[in-house]
Amino acid sequence: MVDDIMPIKELKDRIRDFINERNWNKYHHPKELAISIAIEVAELLEIFQWDEKKDIKSIKNDKEIMDRIKEEISDVMMYILSLSNQLDIDLSRTILMKLDEIQRKYDKDTVLKTGAYRKDKL
Amino acid sequence: MVDDIMPIKELKDRIRDFINERNWNKYHHPKELAISIAIEVAELLEIFQWDEKKDIKSIKNDKEIMDRIKEEISDVMMYILSLSNQLDIDLSRTILMKLDEIQRKYDKDTVLKTGAYRKDKL
Amino acid sequence: MVDDIMPIKELKDRIRDFINERNWNKYHHPKELAISIAIEVAELLEIFQWDEKKDIKSIKNDKEIMDRIKEEISDVMMYILSLSNQLDIDLSRTILMKLDEIQRKYDKDTVLKTGAYRKDKL
Amino acid sequence: MVDDIMPIKELKDRIRDFINERNWNKYHHPKELAISIAIEVAELLEIFQWDEKKDIKSIKNDKEIMDRIKEEISDVMMYILSLSNQLDIDLSRTILMKLDEIQRKYDKDTVLKTGAYRKDKL
Repeated sequence: MVDDIMPIKELKDRIRDFINERNWNKYHHPKELAISIAIEVAELLEIFQWDEKKDIKSIKNDKEIMDRIKEEISDVMMYILSLSNQLDIDLSRTILMKLDEIQRKYDKDTVLKTGAYRKDKL
Repeated sequence: MVDDIMPIKELKDRIRDFINERNWNKYHHPKELAISIAIEVAELLEIFQWDEKKDIKSIKNDKEIMDRIKEEISDVMMYILSLSNQLDIDLSRTILMKLDEIQRKYDKDTVLKTGAYRKDKL
Repeated sequence: MVDDIMPIKELKDRIRDFINERNWNKYHHPKELAISIAIEVAELLEIFQWDEKKDIKSIKNDKEIMDRIKEEISDVMMYILSLSNQLDIDLSRTILMKLDEIQRKYDKDTVLKTGAYRKDKL
Repeated sequence: MVDDIMPIKELKDRIRDFINERNWNKYHHPKELAISIAIEVAELLEIFQWDEKKDIKSIKNDKEIMDRIKEEISDVMMYILSLSNQLDIDLSRTILMKLDEIQRKYDKDTVLKTGAYRKDKL
């Protein structure tokens, strides 16, 4: 499990090197990256198109499906990491701040009491 | 800069706790998460709707735009991290494997020589 | 029921006039329109986010939901009609040709016999 | 030009027959159709990925590009027409009502005077 030890910074650096070595920086404008993220996410969504929601265990046991999911997730992540590079976004800090915000917005006790899971249900 | 030190594992754990504490695990089915990622990515894309591509420096200097971009990127990331939790995906390893693959696919020297930047141009 | 009598051509003409009168033609580049369609479709998808699939009758009886669906469908259609205007695409002919193609691809009898509903199941 | 004469109603009826003959009605739940529209729109967007905005004339002269655009537009339209069938939405009426609304919202003279083209610029 690499996740245990690898900081996002290292992933970002590797993507940055990959882009720079190919002189692709000029293509990775934030607008283009947002477009590319949207395209890749749709390919992730396509994996689940028309399907009833299978239980998670059976998804995890289906190597073909899992490989496709990992493929598309990593495509999405490549562009998110590149976008963070382009705009000097500290991804970890940004995520932690958001987490802080929704922890207040979706107060734990209120959610458990009301069973809410959507903005319009709180 | 938190990015320098925080491993993805820690971000995933925090998201997992947030979801579990609210008993929201039942909603975070991979299909629903893929839908939610698609919705949030479109909100990221909306920031650039109709705009000519501004130079990156002027985007970075526009605090309002940067705040919106960070907001949407973190929404996308929350769902990606939750999806990785649900399916026990080692995000770092997956991204590194993908990087390996495209490093071979888009050979550095060929790319520099041909100026290719798309699958159909290699 | 206006649907019974209004040809697509008339809808396209009205959109064209709307755009021209505002001098917005320069913004309606096919790439920008594709972006805008993607953004609006995500808003359509958002209506169904997190929900179990309700039976269609109860959706139709929910005026608030139906109004939101109509709102987003018409946003999507405005941009599709404008894209067809920009590129001189005969939308009806294009749809009919596609219908012809999939009628051959998804042969009626094969589908009924196998219960197939996806490319990979035929 | 089929657009000149064909009412949306007829297109909707042909899609309905196609779906019914294959017993696919059960798959065409509004939520699934919204997912499918999102997937197909991303394929439309992919045609323009990474590209500078070419002038419209050169796009129209590129038969390969035009064929791909028509292909993806008709995929999107098939699902929109099916969604309209499922929910008894009068597409023409809905579009005309929307057009009425935005004609008031984006007042012609104000737009021409201010050069506005986005909600936040009016």
